[in-house]
Amino acid sequence: MTADRVFHALGDPTRRAIVEKLGDGPTSVSRLAEPLGVTLTAVVQHLQVLEDCGLVHTEKLGRVRTCRLDSAGFKLLEKWIADRRSGWERRLDRLGELLVEPREG
Amino acid sequence: MTADRVFHALGDPTRRAIVEKLGDGPTSVSRLAEPLGVTLTAVVQHLQVLEDCGLVHTEKLGRVRTCRLDSAGFKLLEKWIADRRSGWERRLDRLGELLVEPREG
Repeated sequence: MTADRVFHALGDPTRRAIVEKLGDGPTSVSRLAEPLGVTLTAVVQHLQVLEDCGLVHTEKLGRVRTCRLDSAGFKLLEKWIADRRSGWERRLDRLGELLVEPREG
Repeated sequence: MTADRVFHALGDPTRRAIVEKLGDGPTSVSRLAEPLGVTLTAVVQHLQVLEDCGLVHTEKLGRVRTCRLDSAGFKLLEKWIADRRSGWERRLDRLGELLVEPREG
């Protein structure tokens, strides 16, 4: 599982829409498919990609497959961003914050 | 400028490689092209996409165009991730942290 796979997964607008929808809370595959206007088969395929890169977790309870966000993929994304920003860019940000911060005392 | 455009931009492996390289510090377009094994024209096109979504800033000084990371796109990404995780998922994380935290006193 790498940041590359997470970015590939989120490069697709339908998969981003699925993740945004799941941000509101867990839901079933069929409820996910309805507002997206895509077939159940397509949603299942997208969910597989999202599950493989740790953004979504799905679980079958009886006849209903429930989907929820998984933190692993998000943590990878956050780490990738933090690693890029850890150098001079982050130092620039801090400098900016220092310049606008009111002095104490 | 939206998170959608940032994710589209980073869905491409060459553009991710450019951003990763720029994480080490600003550099010229030609120095960026060499290790990637792509043409200057291709790099310029990728840089345009990255610049349009606020991930990269380029500036021409004399005959050399210098590229550096831009914080705007990264902030959009971070906000998108935070918005997704702000619901039940974040609460789950906090619960997990509470459960493993040693008690004070």
